[in-house]
Amino acid sequence: MEKTHVAIVGMGTVGTGVARLLLDHGDRLARHAGRVLWLTKALVRDLSKDRGIADFPSGILTDNLEEILENKQISVVAHLIGGIEPARTIMLQLLESGKDVVTANKALLAQHGGELFDRARSLGRTIAFEASVGGGIPIIANITQCFTANQIISLRGILNGTSNFILTQMSERGVDYDRALATAQRLGYAEADPTMDVNGSDTTQKLAILAHLAFGVRIDWKEIYRQGLESFTIEDIRYAEKLGYRIRLLATAQLIDDNLELHVSPTLIRNGRPLAEVRGPYNAITVVGDAVGDMFFHGQGAGQMPTASAVVADMIDTAAGRTDITFRRLQLWSDRQCEIEMIPYWKTIGRYYMRYLVADEPGVLSQITGILGSHRISISSIIQHEPTESSEPNKVPLIIMTHECSESEASRAHEAIRALQSVDSECYKLRVTEG
Amino acid sequence: MEKTHVAIVGMGTVGTGVARLLLDHGDRLARHAGRVLWLTKALVRDLSKDRGIADFPSGILTDNLEEILENKQISVVAHLIGGIEPARTIMLQLLESGKDVVTANKALLAQHGGELFDRARSLGRTIAFEASVGGGIPIIANITQCFTANQIISLRGILNGTSNFILTQMSERGVDYDRALATAQRLGYAEADPTMDVNGSDTTQKLAILAHLAFGVRIDWKEIYRQGLESFTIEDIRYAEKLGYRIRLLATAQLIDDNLELHVSPTLIRNGRPLAEVRGPYNAITVVGDAVGDMFFHGQGAGQMPTASAVVADMIDTAAGRTDITFRRLQLWSDRQCEIEMIPYWKTIGRYYMRYLVADEPGVLSQITGILGSHRISISSIIQHEPTESSEPNKVPLIIMTHECSESEASRAHEAIRALQSVDSECYKLRVTEG
Repeated sequence: MEKTHVAIVGMGTVGTGVARLLLDHGDRLARHAGRVLWLTKALVRDLSKDRGIADFPSGILTDNLEEILENKQISVVAHLIGGIEPARTIMLQLLESGKDVVTANKALLAQHGGELFDRARSLGRTIAFEASVGGGIPIIANITQCFTANQIISLRGILNGTSNFILTQMSERGVDYDRALATAQRLGYAEADPTMDVNGSDTTQKLAILAHLAFGVRIDWKEIYRQGLESFTIEDIRYAEKLGYRIRLLATAQLIDDNLELHVSPTLIRNGRPLAEVRGPYNAITVVGDAVGDMFFHGQGAGQMPTASAVVADMIDTAAGRTDITFRRLQLWSDRQCEIEMIPYWKTIGRYYMRYLVADEPGVLSQITGILGSHRISISSIIQHEPTESSEPNKVPLIIMTHECSESEASRAHEAIRALQSVDSECYKLRVTEG
Repeated sequence: MEKTHVAIVGMGTVGTGVARLLLDHGDRLARHAGRVLWLTKALVRDLSKDRGIADFPSGILTDNLEEILENKQISVVAHLIGGIEPARTIMLQLLESGKDVVTANKALLAQHGGELFDRARSLGRTIAFEASVGGGIPIIANITQCFTANQIISLRGILNGTSNFILTQMSERGVDYDRALATAQRLGYAEADPTMDVNGSDTTQKLAILAHLAFGVRIDWKEIYRQGLESFTIEDIRYAEKLGYRIRLLATAQLIDDNLELHVSPTLIRNGRPLAEVRGPYNAITVVGDAVGDMFFHGQGAGQMPTASAVVADMIDTAAGRTDITFRRLQLWSDRQCEIEMIPYWKTIGRYYMRYLVADEPGVLSQITGILGSHRISISSIIQHEPTESSEPNKVPLIIMTHECSESEASRAHEAIRALQSVDSECYKLRVTEG
């Protein structure tokens, strides 16, 4: 059987998982690829570190990238280095030395996808990146190959397992953010520095990639409106539950009259709807296409082997020749004219949840509802509880759910309410969806 | 841009949907395929029938298959005729005249897949069949392309929208089978003759295809154990609900110690588990892979446009060249040696729900529990209600949920209980799963 020589650059958690699949399950991979995927080199930073692969063949590990670049036999490389540099430079070097690349680096693609894809195309090489979004969920292949008869109308997803794990802990265990984060770190679901996960950056980078694939828009992820877990507290999770909703960090891309709405926001999702039921470190994505209707995917969003599964599937596709067809014909990250325009965030329409701490005195509710009315926002439901022992003296929480209105009206009303003397400055406003 | 000439054989509901996508959305399909899919011919039985496509270009419709077979320009044909004959003969004719084929006919593949695939291979042609299982859910592509790094461990699915619609109606509307079926027919979810849907045949044919793809077993679908909706009543749906379960017509394929368990059975699935929450005419599939972990897919299992979406995606894959790679390298329906053996149904292990109508007299419960004990079946829960006004005089329903035991012990115990003088002959036994 023919051999395709492959290499791994970056032997962290995922790289080690990829090596395990290549070394331990060569037979099944060869059956699917129609050729043997032969692991020739694996680049590590520290040659002395134990990789936990007992039978690692000698001569494979190297700390010298040149050994991969200069090896003409190696045609497919799993590029599994995080961050922007040196990841970007190394990917360009790999492409220039004639390798097809498979990557899981969503930050790199979200930031430099255009440059990297243009370079790959001009060199006649390919980049596959299933593992960059959704972990084990094959959302890239599904959008680029399976739903090609459709105009995608919307994509909505829970794309970050760390923040979803934290949210689930807060909601189901009643622990606050700090304790939930500590648990996530202890169980390996969160990095030592979880900033990109919890502030929504990671989710936004993934959304930028999906939006490019599904709608052809080439957008800088930093231009996408983004809120993270800092924008609410466990109190909001409790109130949402009372109202029949769960809070999830939701990435949204949807066509409204041929224009595209894109944002990442903690969102109240009605209980029982598939995205509301996603628990722990899982990811899930709903796709609506004009022919296929609504599709829902749910699976492990991260972790060593689910991500390695996606990387190796891409290596097989690349070795077998499918990636070449997809990459070239589907014009990913190309300069193709995109007729879809972005809807500015303030123009998006939605329902809102607002929480205030208000003075327990006459006239306050009338002031607040007056402000909402003056912004033409109608109230769907309202909760005002009596003060409890634990609440601040003479202050009561007030929760308002609105009907649909524009983000700009909601924001302006929210700021006007916050500016009232009888309202505490710590206020919260979140998006709401029925599903 | 290059043109690929395509044809449609069979202009029923799905065929008309495919024509609509090709005619109305040529631009987007060309973008994804890298070439224009040019609808050249469409075979109909009756040329005078109105197809509901106002701008159908003249000269495309024909009632003569030869016009397609002899047209050398046509390279891809959507074969959308149901049943076995003449569907089988026509598919062979298409392959022999040099066409690549796309089909939605699961019955034909389940019965003659081996013959058709062997012929296609020997002729250098391809058969794509995403639309044959799961409607709009791209389960074929996901198994054959996205999970190629995995050994699939289990597949469980709700694969027939008609029966799931009927079950949902019975459970949520409280109507009996006949009325639920009538509603399904009125809404177009059930054929005039729904036999294959409700007796589990359609589900079993789809399971045979999935089992072949995921496990390499080449099995006659008629050899797979199958129960349909006739094996329980609305009473069982009610009791299942009281116990915290829903009944779904479930297709199961799972590896147990490297051997394969395959069956289609109405199964009690615990509430809240994804498969239990599948409502109406939807389909859903869980896949467990040894690397990717558990994945869940949910979408429209039938219907004109979801199925047409799958057919056209296959036509694009075929025109673009991906099908050729997948079809040849993945050795679908090949003679490749399969090391997996089938587990005889009676040897499978499961939990069971059993319902009896028993005489309301002393000693009966002791007899029944004695029989279960003698078959080493332990009871997980039991319900015996007092007789109600509507129940038969001196008879009470008895519901037993067992712990795990073998199918053979469960069946033998069930038959022994049924043979008791104090037990009515109308008894029910269903499988149970936690999800």
